[in-house]
Amino acid sequence: MRVVFLRIGYELLLGCIEQKTGPDFMTFTIEFQPNGIRLECANSINGLDAARQAGIELISVCGGEGTCGKCVVQLLSDADEHPPSDADKKHITINKIEQGFRLACQLTINKNAKIYIPDGSIIEGQILQTDGEDIFQNVCPSVKKTTLKLSQANLQDLISDFSRIKNELNNKDLSTDLNTLRKLPPLLRENDWHIDIWTRGNEVFHATPHQKTRSIGLAVDVGSTKIACYLMDLANGRTLTAKGTPNPQIAFGEDIMARLGYAMQGTSQAEELFHLTIHAINQTALEMCQRIGLTPEDIDDICIVGNTAMHHFFLNLPTGSLAVSPFVPVTTDPLYPSAKELGINSKPGAGVYAPPVIAGFIGSDHLAFLYAAGFGEDSRVRLGIDIGTNTEIALQVKGRIVSVSTASGPAFEGAHIKYGMRAANGAIEHVHISENGEISLQVIGDQAPIGICGSGILDAVAQMRVREILNHRGRIDKSASNVKLDKQGKPEFTLAYGEKPITLSQTDVDQILLAKGAIRAGIDILMDHLGIDLSNIEEIVIAGAFGSYMLPEHAMGIGMLPSIPLEHIKTIGNAAGTGARMMVASTNSRRQTEDLTKRIEYLELTTYKDFDMFYARGIKA
Amino acid sequence: MRVVFLRIGYELLLGCIEQKTGPDFMTFTIEFQPNGIRLECANSINGLDAARQAGIELISVCGGEGTCGKCVVQLLSDADEHPPSDADKKHITINKIEQGFRLACQLTINKNAKIYIPDGSIIEGQILQTDGEDIFQNVCPSVKKTTLKLSQANLQDLISDFSRIKNELNNKDLSTDLNTLRKLPPLLRENDWHIDIWTRGNEVFHATPHQKTRSIGLAVDVGSTKIACYLMDLANGRTLTAKGTPNPQIAFGEDIMARLGYAMQGTSQAEELFHLTIHAINQTALEMCQRIGLTPEDIDDICIVGNTAMHHFFLNLPTGSLAVSPFVPVTTDPLYPSAKELGINSKPGAGVYAPPVIAGFIGSDHLAFLYAAGFGEDSRVRLGIDIGTNTEIALQVKGRIVSVSTASGPAFEGAHIKYGMRAANGAIEHVHISENGEISLQVIGDQAPIGICGSGILDAVAQMRVREILNHRGRIDKSASNVKLDKQGKPEFTLAYGEKPITLSQTDVDQILLAKGAIRAGIDILMDHLGIDLSNIEEIVIAGAFGSYMLPEHAMGIGMLPSIPLEHIKTIGNAAGTGARMMVASTNSRRQTEDLTKRIEYLELTTYKDFDMFYARGIKA
Repeated sequence: MRVVFLRIGYELLLGCIEQKTGPDFMTFTIEFQPNGIRLECANSINGLDAARQAGIELISVCGGEGTCGKCVVQLLSDADEHPPSDADKKHITINKIEQGFRLACQLTINKNAKIYIPDGSIIEGQILQTDGEDIFQNVCPSVKKTTLKLSQANLQDLISDFSRIKNELNNKDLSTDLNTLRKLPPLLRENDWHIDIWTRGNEVFHATPHQKTRSIGLAVDVGSTKIACYLMDLANGRTLTAKGTPNPQIAFGEDIMARLGYAMQGTSQAEELFHLTIHAINQTALEMCQRIGLTPEDIDDICIVGNTAMHHFFLNLPTGSLAVSPFVPVTTDPLYPSAKELGINSKPGAGVYAPPVIAGFIGSDHLAFLYAAGFGEDSRVRLGIDIGTNTEIALQVKGRIVSVSTASGPAFEGAHIKYGMRAANGAIEHVHISENGEISLQVIGDQAPIGICGSGILDAVAQMRVREILNHRGRIDKSASNVKLDKQGKPEFTLAYGEKPITLSQTDVDQILLAKGAIRAGIDILMDHLGIDLSNIEEIVIAGAFGSYMLPEHAMGIGMLPSIPLEHIKTIGNAAGTGARMMVASTNSRRQTEDLTKRIEYLELTTYKDFDMFYARGIKA
Repeated sequence: MRVVFLRIGYELLLGCIEQKTGPDFMTFTIEFQPNGIRLECANSINGLDAARQAGIELISVCGGEGTCGKCVVQLLSDADEHPPSDADKKHITINKIEQGFRLACQLTINKNAKIYIPDGSIIEGQILQTDGEDIFQNVCPSVKKTTLKLSQANLQDLISDFSRIKNELNNKDLSTDLNTLRKLPPLLRENDWHIDIWTRGNEVFHATPHQKTRSIGLAVDVGSTKIACYLMDLANGRTLTAKGTPNPQIAFGEDIMARLGYAMQGTSQAEELFHLTIHAINQTALEMCQRIGLTPEDIDDICIVGNTAMHHFFLNLPTGSLAVSPFVPVTTDPLYPSAKELGINSKPGAGVYAPPVIAGFIGSDHLAFLYAAGFGEDSRVRLGIDIGTNTEIALQVKGRIVSVSTASGPAFEGAHIKYGMRAANGAIEHVHISENGEISLQVIGDQAPIGICGSGILDAVAQMRVREILNHRGRIDKSASNVKLDKQGKPEFTLAYGEKPITLSQTDVDQILLAKGAIRAGIDILMDHLGIDLSNIEEIVIAGAFGSYMLPEHAMGIGMLPSIPLEHIKTIGNAAGTGARMMVASTNSRRQTEDLTKRIEYLELTTYKDFDMFYARGIKA
């Protein structure tokens, strides 16, 4: 039997708004909320198709059969004209049905309608938003828009323009900058003294004629591979849209050390990486804005997280000291540059919040992950792991949180593996080997395999070990089926035959064992350092793209994770992005994150006693 | 008998450093402190001449006769080789003589020497520094330079570069900006972790390799006519050098209203006035720096004052609302722009302090004047007057301070007067008419007169009134000596005959009466408003160039000032500049000035009851 896997990619699929125009007669409009996208229709249309035509990719595992129950939407108009189907009744509670919730695939729409798309039903939503509810509970943006209708200055009321605003808001401590002051007098006089002002704390940073606009936040997680961007409605903390884009720094090296090396060649090289990163953020933000009818000038506030190298790159801080021992960052303080000085397109006067980094190899993405995952909030023994080229691991025990960074290498991203590739169409993403040696593959895009990505590699090694194709010393059994010798006489295991055979060599297996060994050594050292053993672990929280797709039982199978009951393992997707969204929506979250960072102890692995022993033990198959 | 007048001009006479090189043999060097200027001499030289050759203009009323006692200097080397002369003994106390103080004119120097020039002995010093001692008592600059010798990062001590600085200074609240962070890592590593940092409050704004430099402040008073600049040693509040330069805005109108009109033509016109002003400040600061061996990068902090129009021009704030009723400023708050955003050449990261303005026609120069003159510090009934095209007047009574601005016009600056001119060479600056009608003139530069400046005009009108050449209605007596009729049959009084006769016409007299009437109306309304009469006035403090040169008895004679005992009138020169220097040298002064501004009530004259009556009474001769 072939296992059915659901693949939800970081490739965010929200397309641009398609404004279809039908014939003048007999058309109707479907309006999708909260994005406000409108779809003009000439003929009756299925709900799932309508969303797709409007560029909204709802989750649909069953392809519209009504069996997976994922494509839930809410009818905001005439819900009573759409009696629930059997499928609706099976997947949606009575309460929700009464509120107009239906499966999109069960709907047939033939007149004007208004449909609300919950975050959880959108492909991007499920991936990118994990602790969504937390965001809504804690909305307290640092930026506030206020509409003012002022009395006009006259000879009996001679106070200055800005004093008039301070008096109106009854705030003596209000201050502003020269740019805003320069706009103020004509703005007031040309708009009948009816204006909007934007404040951050006690600082007025922008003013415009009064108009109805939303206050928008931009959250960014600059990963080494991908940059994930989110537009937030700062009125309610809701994610309006999201988009991922490849990190253009990849052109200067797949791994961080290569990019640090490039940056060390000179100032112009370092600035090139900075400008490329900012350009990618600007371009992605622009596309997201256009998608929901906004412009970058609507962006009032920004939060950007990333690992320490990314953090230094997007702030154009020197990275030389990150590239050589002892690998110290320039600063571990939160920073508040203006969007302008970084060149991020946004509202004039908008600020950027760059949360603290913790150490040379533990960045603000790790902090954002721990915050989003609720570290520091309870007393459970919890392990937090964000698997990547560098894997950051935190262990919380009795009020202490200790973090390490371990150089797990890019094997799980498919690098340094003969047929390794990124998680893209044609990649083997899951592997099953039956007792009798029959191999089942899950390939992204349901096509012939052209390579194998991280989760597939993990599966393959784990399954080869289970079926004893791999022995306890990590050697491929030359006599096993599907194993042949390459030109150098080394064994390789063939996963897929056909036009392009895909194999896993002994060298590939060694890479994987080194990678998982580094991770396991980090975990074991943390447990040793804090004096616990694996029976104490109450939860393992796994973040990141690879971590979300891998099968935890396989990660335990090859010894990457300690063996604990499966139900104690929780995967939370891009938690760093979630943390960034929480921080752009809430100054409380910023404060809490800064409190959290003071509690995180950094442990340098390479100087830990018996590090070599832990590592040697970790790489065993 | 001809009265001897001492003229001390705003034309600051400190020249550039003249580095004279003598023959290789038999030369010696005189080093002047605090400026560090060195003079190479081949032959023995008189102290006064040496200072002059070094570009330092000592006050010398007697021309080196040893009778005026003004050219006091201090010998820092071999004072015992210069026994005090009789003139020294007459003018200098024994204590001071023991400390090496001598009259420069009494010294003969024929070997290497080091000589300290006290501020009070320099021409600029006497003019520009009036409350000098106050400055030295209250030094507390907003900028602090600290030298750090840090321990190097290593694997056992992994904190970030900036955390290392915070730890060293034991200041958790220290923050910094991206520009400084960008410099920090290479700076530390290339200079053996031995650097200097500059802080403003808790903010590090600049860092350099460790080196011995002074911390320098720039104080600027942007007057409508002249811009006065001062370089201050922030270690001790001493004025190192000063320079005045014409305000280049004059090209766009002598009076403020003309310039406001020009700025209203468009943004580029307004920006032109901004850029011209900043350029003049930069140019003057550069010349001052070169004079004492510094560069603009040595300037750590800046304070700029000016009337409200000047304030808005130098900050590039819109001036449209200052040009039309009700004449409101953009803001009356203190502002703290960066020097960079204004384009003022200085240390990277340096800030500008722009003290509050009070109203559309009462600027931060008035506030600085009142602060420097000690308003608000005692309970005396005091009148403060800064005479200019707009004359600002403040009256302090029982803890209240009320200020008005009165449009006195430019007559006292020589404008709108037929032979009127600025106080420059060839201007009649003082006039005496004897009982028998004989006219004595004091002319700047001791040359044939080519016109008459403000103080001369005041003298002339006052003396004409005393000698009844002018009657109580302000009419020139056509039958008086030296009076003739012009082509229109109007009388004019001839002050000087010769190649270019200088006359004062009835129209000229009318202008003066209008000007003094405006000032007197302001004074009388203030007294009326606060319920006092002239017997209550305990002191009149007069600031500004014209105010310092005019004879107060003549100002009382024509009714510009109320008649009070002469000893109750105090002139204090450019008090606004003194206030600016106090504020650049001391955050306490900034705080005290901001406290003072909250206590100043602005009174709008034009809406005051019976304003017309007060004005009509004021202009009477």
